[in-house]
Amino acid sequence: MLNDLGLDTSVVILGSGGVATSLARALDDTVGYSVRQIYSPHLAHAEALAGKLAVAEAIDRVEDMMPDADIVIISVTDDAVAQLVASLTPRSDTLWLHTSGSLPASVLAPLGPRYGVLYPLQTFSRSREVRMARVPIFIEASTEEAMVTLRRLADSLSDTVHEADSERRRRLHVAAVFACNFANHLWAIADDLLTADDLSFDVLVPLLKETLEKAADDNPSDGQTGPARRGDRSVMEAHQAMLSPANAEIYRLLSQSIISRYDFL
Amino acid sequence: MLNDLGLDTSVVILGSGGVATSLARALDDTVGYSVRQIYSPHLAHAEALAGKLAVAEAIDRVEDMMPDADIVIISVTDDAVAQLVASLTPRSDTLWLHTSGSLPASVLAPLGPRYGVLYPLQTFSRSREVRMARVPIFIEASTEEAMVTLRRLADSLSDTVHEADSERRRRLHVAAVFACNFANHLWAIADDLLTADDLSFDVLVPLLKETLEKAADDNPSDGQTGPARRGDRSVMEAHQAMLSPANAEIYRLLSQSIISRYDFL
Repeated sequence: MLNDLGLDTSVVILGSGGVATSLARALDDTVGYSVRQIYSPHLAHAEALAGKLAVAEAIDRVEDMMPDADIVIISVTDDAVAQLVASLTPRSDTLWLHTSGSLPASVLAPLGPRYGVLYPLQTFSRSREVRMARVPIFIEASTEEAMVTLRRLADSLSDTVHEADSERRRRLHVAAVFACNFANHLWAIADDLLTADDLSFDVLVPLLKETLEKAADDNPSDGQTGPARRGDRSVMEAHQAMLSPANAEIYRLLSQSIISRYDFL
Repeated sequence: MLNDLGLDTSVVILGSGGVATSLARALDDTVGYSVRQIYSPHLAHAEALAGKLAVAEAIDRVEDMMPDADIVIISVTDDAVAQLVASLTPRSDTLWLHTSGSLPASVLAPLGPRYGVLYPLQTFSRSREVRMARVPIFIEASTEEAMVTLRRLADSLSDTVHEADSERRRRLHVAAVFACNFANHLWAIADDLLTADDLSFDVLVPLLKETLEKAADDNPSDGQTGPARRGDRSVMEAHQAMLSPANAEIYRLLSQSIISRYDFL
């Protein structure tokens, strides 16, 4: 659809997973952008997503890609990007983007001079709708001119857009591994402990939601609580004695890290 | 206020911190219960809380406690409970309760035959309202008859009430340390990493909220993602090289724990 500048930017999305689905649906609602094609090697997947959009065609062969798309977004697994890039026809007028936090922008250089990264910092799945406007997006472009196009696209999708080159994206990824992947694993360990006691993870959810709200409103460090924060060694020792050796080692190391942090404040 | 059985149970709350505040306000809204006194050694603290309630009197001397309260809830720090118990006059008709996850119920035995624990699994602060109905409450009582009174009280406050003796409460506490205290510390580490990069913890919050929603809807183990879950050793090694020795050790140990968990599935 046309925006108030009279622009209608055509977009092709290669991929049909969680990120591709959320991006396609958000772009479909954005004035000035038309999602014209969805590619997946599995036509049924492409059709399932295209069916949710206004005018998109489903394709399962990259040869069927429209030759003059303004923007092509490659949103497949990291491992699949290189092979897909090798199968595409280079074009200098297209802005080529991928959505990976880990891959450098330069993997797209074979496709033409205008390329970049649009990395939404969120966990996506096909079955859960995510409000893209709330998702922080990190962008990188090969040229200043490409950045103008990319910035306009990202600002249309999200209220929070930051520029981040490959190095900065990697540091962001490390932070996300601690905050998201490792925290989730600690929840899995807690779930194991509760299940052994005929309780479920559900009993912890209100506490975790409130803890996260506090961390978000203020900051995580000020909200730290627990035996290690209080330096309560008798409780810490009793807890470790109740755990498997592997979990006791995690308990010991994280408690030591907490003690070190607050001892020096 | 009277409930439909014509009961009006008088409650005295000793303490004015986060737990005391949330309990007092929830009970004040509960038919059948009247919060009659709030005690704090700091009269201003007692007055601040009593002022938010329908009919409560603020006191700063335990000698001024009404002699015939049906229920007395001791909600002070663990360290302060023993001293407070020693200063109270025993009474066999009163149900004496504390709200600690760590202390055994028996610390209240000197006060009479009817005692127990009402432990709300949540993090409380004076300044943040918490909807008590959503907070899981764990209860323990000295006698079956005391349990009837305690169960009625807990069911009035929360939709989720479980019985838990001191041992079960301790195991629950260990699970909460992993899920809440340790996860919060990982968020603090992530915050440090982001701050060094001129970013703020805010950029991770939408990701963390979605990760927690997924863990709550399904379970944390099924939702695990990240380099360790994928067994991506080159990414894990690159990440550790970017970290301080102490944080690299945490990264290594938690990654190993994730790999061990999913290798065996």
